[in-house]
Parts: sequence; structure tokens; C-alpha cells
Amino acid sequence: MTEPHSLTPTIKFCSQCGSAIEYRIPPDDSRLRAVCTVCATVHYDNPKCVVGTIPFLGDKILLCKRAIEPGYGMWTLPAGFMECGESLAQGAARETFEEACATVDLIEPVYSLVDIPHIGQIHIFFRAQLRDHDFAAGHETLAVALFAHDEIPWQELAFNSVRVALQSFIADATRGEFNTHHHVRTLTVS
Amino acid sequence: MTEPHSLTPTIKFCSQCGSAIEYRIPPDDSRLRAVCTVCATVHYDNPKCVVGTIPFLGDKILLCKRAIEPGYGMWTLPAGFMECGESLAQGAARETFEEACATVDLIEPVYSLVDIPHIGQIHIFFRAQLRDHDFAAGHETLAVALFAHDEIPWQELAFNSVRVALQSFIADATRGEFNTHHHVRTLTVS
Ligand SMILES: [Zn+2]
Ligand SMILES: [Zn+2]
Repeated sequence: MTEPHSLTPTIKFCSQCGSAIEYRIPPDDSRLRAVCTVCATVHYDNPKCVVGTIPFLGDKILLCKRAIEPGYGMWTLPAGFMECGESLAQGAARETFEEACATVDLIEPVYSLVDIPHIGQIHIFFRAQLRDHDFAAGHETLAVALFAHDEIPWQELAFNSVRVALQSFIADATRGEFNTHHHVRTLTVS
Repeated sequence: MTEPHSLTPTIKFCSQCGSAIEYRIPPDDSRLRAVCTVCATVHYDNPKCVVGTIPFLGDKILLCKRAIEPGYGMWTLPAGFMECGESLAQGAARETFEEACATVDLIEPVYSLVDIPHIGQIHIFFRAQLRDHDFAAGHETLAVALFAHDEIPWQELAFNSVRVALQSFIADATRGEFNTHHHVRTLTVS
């Protein structure tokens, strides 16, 4: 079994002893790993989860205008990297509060999952009922606003995973039944 | 916002320059992070995904008897850490092949998700149709076997997330409808 991807090796020194790393395939493994040349610790690089919500109030969806790169000035759903010690739902609610100052009631189970293998990320969104109109731009946000389904700024969305989540949500809302969706974002070669 | 967990800090040296780490809260952040005392790189520690399958053939489910710790000699579903560069489904199929030498057709969307915040893991299982009876114990497995729903060795399962996935699967199979399930495993204080 060979290395299926070409993600750039990013580990140069051992986080346990500070010595130099070399990339080699350990015994009983089939992949190149960052292995310490002194203490032999194997350092694994694993995909990261981005968690967020599709916050809604009546027939409208809350979007955030990004105040940071990537996607400065573009619209997005509130989302960010999941932290150790929290659940997917806790992370999604936390990001919603941080970016949109909004309190939400999450709807289980998880709603939209998008794999992005070439950057080692999984983007996971929950549907989330906004408690009220008490929301505002957080530190990483220029503005927040509610959009009707036919008002979504499709040409100004920051991320493909946000587009996919919104498309699923609006299609499901239209037919009146919500199911979990899972997509894989492949690298487009053009 | 305070640190919601007590996971042990594990990063001692900077993976970029090899210098000593100190744990502090960076500007514009609210959590303790491993920050390099020389190059100022912030090192994040994120939850890891474990991916696997519930392989079935007719009315039976394939389980693997573990040849490694933790859970040596206990039964489990084929699963392991997701790798960078692969999708959730590719990781689940890879682990099924590595541990049970079995080829499966995965059923979308993802079926069982279990958050385990206190160890920073998410365990994600797909339902997976076994192509045939061509399966065998892989390197990390002592034995593989098919179990009818009333033959599952509940007292000898290696992991709670496997128990949860099997319970959901058997309940859904009994009522004849499968939906995605999401649970959070909280730390039991006894
Ligand atoms: Zn080392
Ligand atoms: Zn450094």
C-alpha cells in the first residue's frame, strides 16, 4: 500500500525531545511518518475537523461576512476548528457564539459532512435553531445577516463546504424532510 | 471563555525549530496553546477521527478479535485512525481491508458517530456490505467471524463506540429503517 497523497511534510523536529525528524516508513506501517532520529517517537499527522452550524430563524438563514483571510469579505456559515475536550456539537455551538454572538439549539444528528482529503479536513455542520434575533458580528466577522433561501449570495460564499451545506439544507427544506448528507470534495484539475 | 478540559499538554518542543515550548494564551485566543519560545509558532492539538465499518453479509455482522492492546483478545469492528489525504469512506474501507482482509461496499451517508471529548476522538462508522466470504485476520487481528444479531459477544467488546454502533445497527435493522446516529460518550464518574 503506497502513500495515497502528497501533503507536504510539516514536522521538522521532535515535539518530545527537540531532535531532528526524518521521514521513513516504520516497521509494521505502510506510510511515511515523521520519526525522531534520537528518541524514535513516531509523529502522526491526522485530518482536522471543522465544525459549524446552519443557523436558521423561520425561513431565513444566518450568514457571517468574514473579517479574516481566507475569504475576507466573503459570506460563510459560522464554523471553525474543533478543539480537544469538546464534542462536535459543543464546538459547533461555540463557533456560532464566537463568530455570530448567537445562541442556538442544535438539531441532531450531524447534518452535512464534507471530506476535503487534499487539505486533510472534514467540515461538519449541524442545523441550528436561533433562539432569537440577538446576534451580532464577532471578532472574526464584519457583519451578520439573515437571508431568505432565494437571497443566498451564492457568488460570494467563502467556502465550497458552505455552499454544499446550504444547497442540501434548502433542497431538504423545500421537500420538507431533512437527512444527513455526506460529500467528498475532490481536487478539480482544470 | 475558559479551557473546558484537562487534557494533558503533550508538546514539549517546537516541531518547526526544535526550541522549547511554553503553554500560554496567545493574543486573540482564549485557550492555552503550545507556543514556541523562539519562533512563536502556535501548535494546535486537535481531535482525531477513528473511522471504521459495520461489515455485514445477509443477517450477520463481521467482528475482529484484537491482536493488539488496548483490548487484546476482545472483539471489535474494523476501525482505525483516519489518515491525511484520504476521505472518511476511504479510511473506513482501508481499515476494513487491513484488519479483516475484507472488501466492502460502503453505504452512505456515515452511520454512527460517537464523540469522546475526554480523549479528543470522534469514532465514525459506515454500514458496509461484504462482497463475499473472502475475509481473514489481518496483522492486528487474531480472528474474524460472522455473528448473527443474537450472537454478538456484548460482554467481550473492546470499545464503547463499537457497542453503540452495533446497538444502533441492530435496532435499525429490526425496525427496517436506517438513519444516521450521533452520540456523545461522557466520562463516567463512579
Ligand atoms: Zn525525539
Ligand atoms: Zn519554534
